[in-house]
This record gives sequence, C-alpha cells and structure tokens, in this order.
Amino acid sequence: MTYEAVNFEDKFGLFVEHWEPKVVAEMNDYQFKVVKIKGDFVWHEHNNTDETFIVLEGNLRIDFRDGRVNLTKGEMYVVPKGVEHKPYAESEVKILLIEPRGVLNTGQEGGERTAENDVWI
Amino acid sequence: MTYEAVNFEDKFGLFVEHWEPKVVAEMNDYQFKVVKIKGDFVWHEHNNTDETFIVLEGNLRIDFRDGRVNLTKGEMYVVPKGVEHKPYAESEVKILLIEPRGVLNTGQEGGERTAENDVWI
Repeated sequence: MTYEAVNFEDKFGLFVEHWEPKVVAEMNDYQFKVVKIKGDFVWHEHNNTDETFIVLEGNLRIDFRDGRVNLTKGEMYVVPKGVEHKPYAESEVKILLIEPRGVLNTGQEGGERTAENDVWI
Repeated sequence: MTYEAVNFEDKFGLFVEHWEPKVVAEMNDYQFKVVKIKGDFVWHEHNNTDETFIVLEGNLRIDFRDGRVNLTKGEMYVVPKGVEHKPYAESEVKILLIEPRGVLNTGQEGGERTAENDVWI
C-alpha cells in the first residue's frame, strides 16, 4: 500500500484567501496549518501555548512589544506563550503554523480577524 | 531588540554525520530536530507518540510493514504512534523531525543506531 505525503505547494494551490489557516495534518493533539498572510494582523497572545511559524515562501516579520524577528523561506520561529505578537507581511507569504488543536489565530484578542480553522485532513 | 530565527540551511552547514538529530527549537514540550539521513535505518516504533517528518531537501522513503510513503522537498508525513516504520534514503536527505522531548530515534528498538539528541538551542 502506498501512503500519501502532505505536499505544501499542492495545499497552497487550493485557496487564495489570507489569514485563514487550513489544517493539513495532526500529530498527537497538535495541528499543522498552512496559511497565506499579507498585510498587518492584530496584536494578540496565546496564554496557554507556544506557537511555531515556519516560512515556506516569502518574508514574514513578527513584531513584539520590545522588538521583532524577520523570517524568510527556510526559517522558523517559536513565539513563547503569553508573549504579545503581531505578524506582518509586505507581500504574500506562505506559512506553516504548528500549535495545539483548538488554538485560534487571534488568541485572547478575538475580533473580526478570528478565523475558523478549516480541517483538510 | 531583534530576535533571531532558526535558519535550517545554517544548521545543516554545521555537521556532516547521518542519523544524529540536533535539537534546534522547542515548542512547549515538543522539539524540532534537524537530521541528515542516508541509507537504511532500523525497524522501530514509538509507542507513546506520533512522529513528524518534514523533508527540507532530497528524497525520503518511509517503509511500513504494509506499504510505504515517498516524500520529497516540501512534503511532510506524520507516522502514527505504535506503527512500525523504517526510514530510507538512497542519497542524503535533510529532514526536520518534530516529536515530544525525550523521544529516541530508534524508539523501543534501541541498538547501535540510537543517538543522543544534541541540543543546539
């Protein structure tokens, strides 16, 4: 029997919208989500969990209250739990997010940018 | 303040050995490990956890008792807990592993291929 890998480019080819993560795999109680980001997000934090960003294409900046981190393709960063952050991308960037099942993109902040996580597995 | 991303290519440039994972980041109680693989590994399973393989460069095959999965750059696969598997790479492949802290590469099997996880964070 041949099992099927998750191909990130294939998944990104299936949608155009920004800021709406799609769950493409699960590991124990964690989820892998592909998401396209462009522009500015809201300040928020996740009080109960770290959050991992892996950049698959493009450039991502994550602002913190006391600084920032710049990521490009082939780079990752783990935002520690409880740390306020705001993702920003001047041009579209393709990202893999990893976080526990049930985490919302806007954390404790909520608001109109809060997205359901479409599950594609 | 400028924070630093983890750059996978930079990390791979720091070692040549195969089958010896290096921890480059942590998310809660999970670890991200870069590893170079070439040749055949031992059959093993992890009874308490799933294990995630993301291929960053090259081609990886994971054999199961009833089949296999082929992964290339930009693809991932989650091996479910308890499932016997054997990674194989004809040529060197660069991989990102994600699994809970403390998991050994040879699972319950042990043996000479069992590697300490060097921690590079």
